[in-house]
Amino acid sequence: MPSGSPFGLDALPYGVFATEDSRPGVGVRIGEHALSLAALDPPAPLADLDLFATGSLDRMMAAGPDVWAEVRAWVRGVLTRPDPDVAAQLVPLAEVDLSMPFTVADYVDFYSSEHHADNVGRIFRPGTAPLPEHWKHLPIGYHGRAGTVFPSGTDVVRPCGLRRSTEGRPPTFGPTRTLDIEAEVGFVVGTPSPLGTRVPSSDVSHHVFGVVLVNDWSARDVQAYESAPLGPFLGKSFATSMSTWVLPLAALEGARVTPPRRDVPLAEHLADDPEEPWGLDLDLTVSWNSTVVSRPPFAGMYWTPAQQLAHLTSNGASLRTGDLFASGTVSGPERGERGSLLELSWNGAEQVRLADGSLRTFLDDGDTVTVSATAPGPGGVRVGLGEVTGRVLPAV
Amino acid sequence: MPSGSPFGLDALPYGVFATEDSRPGVGVRIGEHALSLAALDPPAPLADLDLFATGSLDRMMAAGPDVWAEVRAWVRGVLTRPDPDVAAQLVPLAEVDLSMPFTVADYVDFYSSEHHADNVGRIFRPGTAPLPEHWKHLPIGYHGRAGTVFPSGTDVVRPCGLRRSTEGRPPTFGPTRTLDIEAEVGFVVGTPSPLGTRVPSSDVSHHVFGVVLVNDWSARDVQAYESAPLGPFLGKSFATSMSTWVLPLAALEGARVTPPRRDVPLAEHLADDPEEPWGLDLDLTVSWNSTVVSRPPFAGMYWTPAQQLAHLTSNGASLRTGDLFASGTVSGPERGERGSLLELSWNGAEQVRLADGSLRTFLDDGDTVTVSATAPGPGGVRVGLGEVTGRVLPAV
Repeated sequence: MPSGSPFGLDALPYGVFATEDSRPGVGVRIGEHALSLAALDPPAPLADLDLFATGSLDRMMAAGPDVWAEVRAWVRGVLTRPDPDVAAQLVPLAEVDLSMPFTVADYVDFYSSEHHADNVGRIFRPGTAPLPEHWKHLPIGYHGRAGTVFPSGTDVVRPCGLRRSTEGRPPTFGPTRTLDIEAEVGFVVGTPSPLGTRVPSSDVSHHVFGVVLVNDWSARDVQAYESAPLGPFLGKSFATSMSTWVLPLAALEGARVTPPRRDVPLAEHLADDPEEPWGLDLDLTVSWNSTVVSRPPFAGMYWTPAQQLAHLTSNGASLRTGDLFASGTVSGPERGERGSLLELSWNGAEQVRLADGSLRTFLDDGDTVTVSATAPGPGGVRVGLGEVTGRVLPAV
Repeated sequence: MPSGSPFGLDALPYGVFATEDSRPGVGVRIGEHALSLAALDPPAPLADLDLFATGSLDRMMAAGPDVWAEVRAWVRGVLTRPDPDVAAQLVPLAEVDLSMPFTVADYVDFYSSEHHADNVGRIFRPGTAPLPEHWKHLPIGYHGRAGTVFPSGTDVVRPCGLRRSTEGRPPTFGPTRTLDIEAEVGFVVGTPSPLGTRVPSSDVSHHVFGVVLVNDWSARDVQAYESAPLGPFLGKSFATSMSTWVLPLAALEGARVTPPRRDVPLAEHLADDPEEPWGLDLDLTVSWNSTVVSRPPFAGMYWTPAQQLAHLTSNGASLRTGDLFASGTVSGPERGERGSLLELSWNGAEQVRLADGSLRTFLDDGDTVTVSATAPGPGGVRVGLGEVTGRVLPAV
């Protein structure tokens, strides 16, 4: 077993993959290999649940936190004992064909980085207060298109849309000129909640199965033209990419940190519990054509996933297995910590230099963007999250 | 067979229901009866598809327009021929237990009534242009929460949320004081479309399986506080009600009318085809505790479902079977044609008198709201849409 790898025994993300010899089934990543769980014999309480041969994580996600803990303990045990049968089942990552790990039910995107919201406000509404007055009273969010959430590696076709024209002229329809990324962290709901009940923030680990990295591709010109008064729509709905490996929330116990100091009193259901903080010390890395252009720190996010979950259900809305809620763009206070090209290029005003010497603002056709992340783990070894990558194809 | 009924042979909406003796299956409404299709023997090409015993319309919806036409022709034939076996299968509506007719994939809500958008603008932004500058260039819309779309008859628990407080004070959390309805028409996608392709407006009848009535319940105070800049979220996501009977789009051939005159030139993909208009002459009725308070005319909607579909996919977003896109509140130019209580009460400034003498602005606990509709049909007999009804329960 790998020592010092961010994908050692303390990570063990789940995914769904096929190999040359096997149909899609649930497995885990260990180091630079994948292990199919469908090919093993789980112990009695798990064996009856038929969790691994289904071609998706849906059934395991719905089974709830006790089962998640049992599966994780079993897999750790299997990988800890020397067993030639298990070793024979390890498949190099290059030989597995990963697919969408679960069925996305509803997709919600938050707006929880103060630095991102502040940057966006200063870019689009110069001279006014950059943050909306309610920004620090609730985690602002909206629903995205679940049907266009795709697994990492899916190419993104440059979308067309209506863009603002010169004053008094009708808008023009064509390929977006300002294709952007948003580096985000997504939380995957396993345990559903019934309609009409509120999920307290203290129950986050009961409901959230795992964590993914998300790239919420954005066509800024389309978004800017369409968004008033009902929010982003076609500027976002063409594609959202998600890592194919889902890191169990349990793997991030060592990453939990106190979120930023609160500047205003919070409503009771959004209050932080100082004993059970849900800030997460994840270090993200954004690579643009292999040049690292940003290192957004997740620890500084103003709103935690626990608060997002409590807010999302505070009106009694039910949760379904497969609900995905993402953090919104992760940006830190420094220029090299911004999680979108809108911010990195200050809406096109400042160029970003890539390793090949090219100077860029937004995405060109053929560009590839990859978001990865690690978190503190036990014994000083960092825990890795599955990366999310995608390449831009020309508009059709 | 009923003659003169809005649920005669020219309507034949589909639903999913169980009876005392049968599990949920697909059936049709004919007059005041329901007929289970799962209990009949469809002709050869349909028999192999196993469309009716599945407990949802999903499979029939996905089968595409040729199959929809075959099923409709077969059912009309069955109901036209005198057949004691079929007559014996008719179940009074009071004895069927209707359920959610299909799995909602993504739910999109548009904002396509000029009168509604104009009213909302005048209420919330007095003294400024009521319509956003881009309103007549594209059908504004946003994604709602698919997981909280419920069948007609589901009670709606008054939601809680954060509401604006007096200047300088933090918001207060509690039950909404301004619970509202939105009377809408929803379009149900059957045939999916692949990612990266645009669906032309001329293909609407290839993709849209049927039509439902929708009540998009809204907590106006919650919505007003949260909506900038990403749009409505918790003010809407607690419940959206949908009729359990889905009228095939084919039943509305006689209702197709030319939409309103266009005030600005439209982008090519949104242009109207004068030969194939997709305005729909539906007459809606909104009843509040059995008092008819509004009769919104759908024919005056500025944006048609064909344009909404073309817009929705103009960025290459894929369609899935079960996607539901709703029109937005249907309001006409007259006071008695407004499809929301926000407009009927002019945000609480004008009271609405119900038959019991009570004067109202927004919804009280215990109130019931029902939206129904009919459309012109062949031979002067109107065609009915399934009604959507719901009762308000007190906040938890």
